[in-house]
Amino acid sequence: MTSVTSGSGRTLTDLFVEAAKQALDESGVDKIDSLYVGNMMSGFLQNQEHLGALMATALGREGVPAYKVEGACASGGVAVNAAVKAVLSGLEEIVLVGAVEKMSGYTTPEVTTGLMMAEDRLKVASTGVTFVGLNAMIAREYMSKYKVGHESLAQFPVLCHQNGLDNPKAQFRRKIEIQDVLESPLVADPLRLLDCSGIGDGAAAILLAPRDVAKKFTDSPVEVAASTVAGDTLSLYQRPTTTTFEASRQASDRAYKQAGITPRDVDLLEVHDAFSILGVMALEDLGFAEKGAGTGLLDEGECARDGRVPTNSFGGLKARGHPVGASGLYQIAEVALQLKNEAGKCQVPCAEVGLTQSVGGIGSTVAIHILRAM
Amino acid sequence: MTSVTSGSGRTLTDLFVEAAKQALDESGVDKIDSLYVGNMMSGFLQNQEHLGALMATALGREGVPAYKVEGACASGGVAVNAAVKAVLSGLEEIVLVGAVEKMSGYTTPEVTTGLMMAEDRLKVASTGVTFVGLNAMIAREYMSKYKVGHESLAQFPVLCHQNGLDNPKAQFRRKIEIQDVLESPLVADPLRLLDCSGIGDGAAAILLAPRDVAKKFTDSPVEVAASTVAGDTLSLYQRPTTTTFEASRQASDRAYKQAGITPRDVDLLEVHDAFSILGVMALEDLGFAEKGAGTGLLDEGECARDGRVPTNSFGGLKARGHPVGASGLYQIAEVALQLKNEAGKCQVPCAEVGLTQSVGGIGSTVAIHILRAM
Repeated sequence: MTSVTSGSGRTLTDLFVEAAKQALDESGVDKIDSLYVGNMMSGFLQNQEHLGALMATALGREGVPAYKVEGACASGGVAVNAAVKAVLSGLEEIVLVGAVEKMSGYTTPEVTTGLMMAEDRLKVASTGVTFVGLNAMIAREYMSKYKVGHESLAQFPVLCHQNGLDNPKAQFRRKIEIQDVLESPLVADPLRLLDCSGIGDGAAAILLAPRDVAKKFTDSPVEVAASTVAGDTLSLYQRPTTTTFEASRQASDRAYKQAGITPRDVDLLEVHDAFSILGVMALEDLGFAEKGAGTGLLDEGECARDGRVPTNSFGGLKARGHPVGASGLYQIAEVALQLKNEAGKCQVPCAEVGLTQSVGGIGSTVAIHILRAM
Repeated sequence: MTSVTSGSGRTLTDLFVEAAKQALDESGVDKIDSLYVGNMMSGFLQNQEHLGALMATALGREGVPAYKVEGACASGGVAVNAAVKAVLSGLEEIVLVGAVEKMSGYTTPEVTTGLMMAEDRLKVASTGVTFVGLNAMIAREYMSKYKVGHESLAQFPVLCHQNGLDNPKAQFRRKIEIQDVLESPLVADPLRLLDCSGIGDGAAAILLAPRDVAKKFTDSPVEVAASTVAGDTLSLYQRPTTTTFEASRQASDRAYKQAGITPRDVDLLEVHDAFSILGVMALEDLGFAEKGAGTGLLDEGECARDGRVPTNSFGGLKARGHPVGASGLYQIAEVALQLKNEAGKCQVPCAEVGLTQSVGGIGSTVAIHILRAM
């Protein structure tokens, strides 16, 4: 993983190559069979597509099959899903998956328009609503339906900032209190600045291979016990309720079946907390709390690193940062480090099973991965 | 497949849904396990990403796993490659793959900039060279190195226009002669207007499934005997020669091995003739002629529908049209129709094995598929 930063002026290629070289160097892998690149916004922001060939060339591996995989903010998650299928197909053995996003260096209208590419341009973006605005509507309905106060939701970013303090690659390494969230500038009522992830640049990369091949390169391989994707309607207005992401439920249900486990077996979670409300909803939709009771886990400290379900142990989207198309791969890399006991100051005790949730758009695409120490 | 048109005002969704519904209706398939969408330019031209969820929703199949796959002008080809791996992985059974591009309704600078997203924005596009310009350099080197005249290259678009006359979905249904090509307006010396594919909108879709499942839905299933992707440097300046696309050679070599055949066994070809020079080079790089001798096949009528290697039997990129991210899927759908003996007036006699070549950028990504009648 690269550090998540803003304003460094580094290009898409700079970022991607740093992460991919790190993955190759640390693993000792020389020959790769293919490359998958997760990214959401390069066409719009950088006027650059064909990231497969661009990044393969920049890595000096221009012969390999390479292409880009996109699922809005879940691009990192779906890129890994595509790569998992490539390995399972038997056609490719050692596969490099990287994801990258560069969001800084553009005007706010540019980035806002870029993010709204995850929603329906003709029917929804055209109304003028922003991506934060849509999430604010969810927060409003959730707070009203379940009688949950903003101060309860605010525990999520507070937790993330606490965890991010120990992650040298985190974008925001600053402790915050609930009061800071409640008093931060209003962005889209009820969401305030500290409810929202920021604008950042970053890249992450991993290597996938069949179990027996992976064991040749490391003493602590991590098993992909499940890789699933589920969808929902593209737009919020098309759904009966906004306070559950049905795609999260379906993708995680399928993932638990694939891995042969239940939520009780999960030792750590990386959830897609682009906004505080999404972090809380994830705890519920993934099966760790009843609907409306997600904040209870936070009240009781169960999501802290020494809690029952350590969540976003490297800081999550809020504090580690959310370079959108890359975040899903940061989550997977972070869980892998935890299971390998290489998470440094972010290490949680005795984790053997970790789950990542990568969300595209307003819960319209969800990729779930369950990783297990081998 | 939709007709390839320009200026109809139809949206990405209109186009995609028409093609996908046709695939579902004609096959009688109801339940699909996933959806892969090939597309190159939606982020830049339509400010729309997340085509997986957008198209799944528009089809009324919003639950299914869905994402976009991009490899510049080879997006259609690489989307099928991703879908083939999904089926081979055993995780998905019936998979819908569609590809769509909408290029009309924009200014020439917009579309030109969009196409150059296939090349390196920072190092190559920034010089002002266009995509036609890069292909013109290839044509110039080829003509000089092999002493081939423009009138020889011009046979390729003449062949495509001849074939396109019989394809009701072709964008350009007009017979042309070699003299028409040579006298058409100069675009980038030596390439003239009729050497170049046009700007068009279109979508195509197919269904993939394991052999035994496919047989339940049709009496004439078509086997995917090979699906390969190979890469090359992103940019032309990084290569020792421009007159061979090494990625075409490598992807087709691997494909012949996968299918257990040689070029002699191929009964029909769909090649990526975005420019006349590329059609001729493809005949060579895919193993049907020695380097520099591709036009010889055209001289002898061997690429005509009644020739030894019928090529671009529906009109190819030049006459059927080249909605860039969708073209690779048109090729595959057309070959499938030929092998099913459902190609109408475009039908070639006795075809059992067909090969498609989908090229991204300046030969930087090449996807090859070999289809075989079952």
